[in-house]
Amino acid sequence: MSTTNNESPVAHNSYFDGTVQSLALATDKGKATVGVMKPGKYTFGTAAPEEMIVVAGELNVKLPGEDWAVYYAHQPFSIAANQSFDVSCDNDVAYICYYG
Amino acid sequence: MSTTNNESPVAHNSYFDGTVQSLALATDKGKATVGVMKPGKYTFGTAAPEEMIVVAGELNVKLPGEDWAVYYAHQPFSIAANQSFDVSCDNDVAYICYYG
Repeated sequence: MSTTNNESPVAHNSYFDGTVQSLALATDKGKATVGVMKPGKYTFGTAAPEEMIVVAGELNVKLPGEDWAVYYAHQPFSIAANQSFDVSCDNDVAYICYYG
Repeated sequence: MSTTNNESPVAHNSYFDGTVQSLALATDKGKATVGVMKPGKYTFGTAAPEEMIVVAGELNVKLPGEDWAVYYAHQPFSIAANQSFDVSCDNDVAYICYYG
């Protein structure tokens, strides 16, 4: 493998003892991360509005004031800023999250 | 943020001084990784057949025996096992890659 670039490394974040990890990128829709969640139940908080889209897998999501719902690949859901939301998955899930 | 699980951490791989990084997951299509590439030109080698799909961004790809072509979000391309292929990007790219 070889390359020609002098870019800074991709920013990598790890949560919940590494069972949720993400990689940051800039997109034409603004800042984003792609990430993977291992099976489990997680509660996240938002600082800015977020749009999440499942890339692979099935994600159970409980948005503020709503019932649990299942989201599959390519299905987006949005969360306002300064909110808390719950997710759970029985198998690995990949996602992309857009911020702002 | 909180969680309830006792899973092993997501496997994280870093290439080219961190300008390409990936996170591994199991999917119903088999082993996969989601990853991010910073701007640059990269040459990869395959051990097993791979199917790559751009998740965000634009990726210039030169597959074995083919001309350069641009791939956008949701457009898959496949590479046979034991091949080398070139990619380049002018902006960050997120992808998912399925193996086997």
